[in-house]
Amino acid sequence: MVDVLIIGTVGYDNVETPFGKRTRALGGSASYASVAASFFVEPGIVAIVGDDFQKEHKQLLLSKNISLHGLTQVSGKTFAWGGKYEYDMNEAKTSFTDLNTLLEFDAHVPEEYRNARYVFLANTDPVLQLKVIEQLKNPQFIVMDTMNFWIQTKKEDLLKVIAKVNVLLLNDGEARMLFNTVNLQQAARQALHLGPQYVIIKKGEHGALLFSDGKHFNAPGYPLEVIKDPTGCGDCFAGGFIGYLAKQGSVDESSLRKAIIYGSVVASFNAEDFSLDRISKLTYAEVEKRFGEMKEIREF
Amino acid sequence: MVDVLIIGTVGYDNVETPFGKRTRALGGSASYASVAASFFVEPGIVAIVGDDFQKEHKQLLLSKNISLHGLTQVSGKTFAWGGKYEYDMNEAKTSFTDLNTLLEFDAHVPEEYRNARYVFLANTDPVLQLKVIEQLKNPQFIVMDTMNFWIQTKKEDLLKVIAKVNVLLLNDGEARMLFNTVNLQQAARQALHLGPQYVIIKKGEHGALLFSDGKHFNAPGYPLEVIKDPTGCGDCFAGGFIGYLAKQGSVDESSLRKAIIYGSVVASFNAEDFSLDRISKLTYAEVEKRFGEMKEIREF
Repeated sequence: MVDVLIIGTVGYDNVETPFGKRTRALGGSASYASVAASFFVEPGIVAIVGDDFQKEHKQLLLSKNISLHGLTQVSGKTFAWGGKYEYDMNEAKTSFTDLNTLLEFDAHVPEEYRNARYVFLANTDPVLQLKVIEQLKNPQFIVMDTMNFWIQTKKEDLLKVIAKVNVLLLNDGEARMLFNTVNLQQAARQALHLGPQYVIIKKGEHGALLFSDGKHFNAPGYPLEVIKDPTGCGDCFAGGFIGYLAKQGSVDESSLRKAIIYGSVVASFNAEDFSLDRISKLTYAEVEKRFGEMKEIREF
Repeated sequence: MVDVLIIGTVGYDNVETPFGKRTRALGGSASYASVAASFFVEPGIVAIVGDDFQKEHKQLLLSKNISLHGLTQVSGKTFAWGGKYEYDMNEAKTSFTDLNTLLEFDAHVPEEYRNARYVFLANTDPVLQLKVIEQLKNPQFIVMDTMNFWIQTKKEDLLKVIAKVNVLLLNDGEARMLFNTVNLQQAARQALHLGPQYVIIKKGEHGALLFSDGKHFNAPGYPLEVIKDPTGCGDCFAGGFIGYLAKQGSVDESSLRKAIIYGSVVASFNAEDFSLDRISKLTYAEVEKRFGEMKEIREF
């Protein structure tokens, strides 16, 4: 059994930002989210890679006590993505997406993972997200992410998944698109009507918002002077969030709020360097220290 | 002597938003800021109007215990502005600006106001802002606002004013423009180098940031489901901010943080209706209640 089950991608990224450039750097939603969760618990991932996936990258994930029983390796090339961030660092312009072996991904959850109580469904085809949910034996808390692409192409399937999860995670742009309103409060209210108990809207530098029935939490953004590469920040947020909750073994309002701050903290570190460079060296003491700073910047 | 001196405009606005339309509604930075400040102290304003300025509007301001000794009435038309907000409500598109009698405004501060200790210089020509500062006898705390237009046309004068105030108030777009960076932390650091002790960056729905030497405060935005008309919110923020500080008679870090929340609270009410309709009916009990909610939404 794993503490947290994470379904997503493991891949290679070509990233360019005003601060530099990396080619074939380790990336993918499951990589970022699992390393983020590893500060709190021992997560396991379900993902697929090709035979070009490097041992050193497998080793990096294993060194963080991430279970890789669910990482299928098949012949062919690993999923690869290329993107460029302009000066404002808000959104990457995708230069290429080579699905490669990801086309063979069937979201099969290994028997030893099916008892997982905390589950993060990273951004992927909602049909696969649904398939994962159906394989779970005792899910207590399912968090899902998605993206514009699925909102535009598979909205009906997406709505089915949303109805089955505890937390819908969206960024502000996605929330506005999915619910056809600029007002995030209105978007959240509509989202809650679809079934999830909680909706979290990520706003990048502006922090994150938690909505549930009649309650609202506003999490600050950590004030970073330099953002080298925001790739994976959303997944780090999700990984830190669910990792902390699984460690607590509690999903009450107070734990959820703290979990959002822990997620934000790990995400803020992640933005400080390319790929997983910063979070793979990050210590738990650094996480705790920044959590304290987040409290301080909100006190009045 | 007045508790808070406010220099700005009193005028008539034609405003259109997706929620309605108003013509010749009371507006202007000094109107909004002084009503906002009036929840805490008795402010006085220095502004100019024409002979078309309506008695009922003078009456409204007087009913809030706002001193109008500094409100000069001359023959001619009152300053008028027209703007339209699109669906996203972020920024008004100006349809007209008729300076009218504002062209005669000489920023003369009446003798009985010159001892004011708390001063808000609302957005206006930096040359006039400087002139006001020179007339003050015992300023303890000066807060200034500005706008893109002055950054683009009178940057040198603007920098001189900034060097003489305690607090520079900017919105995020202005901060990025003035300091030529997208990163608000970098912008704030540069701003502090110019002289002021504090920089506040207003981010609309995303709240506000306070920066001083080595300290940072992140104020949440109040979650409004409907924003009818954001006109004047920045001035309400400033008025509530300085009004609270003057009432406290203290400008320590703790008071400043609370003042930012009070400013945000009054601004959030202001957005709920057109012109000064909401804040002219607002009660202090409502302000206190929402202040409490602001505490609750950021607790973790």
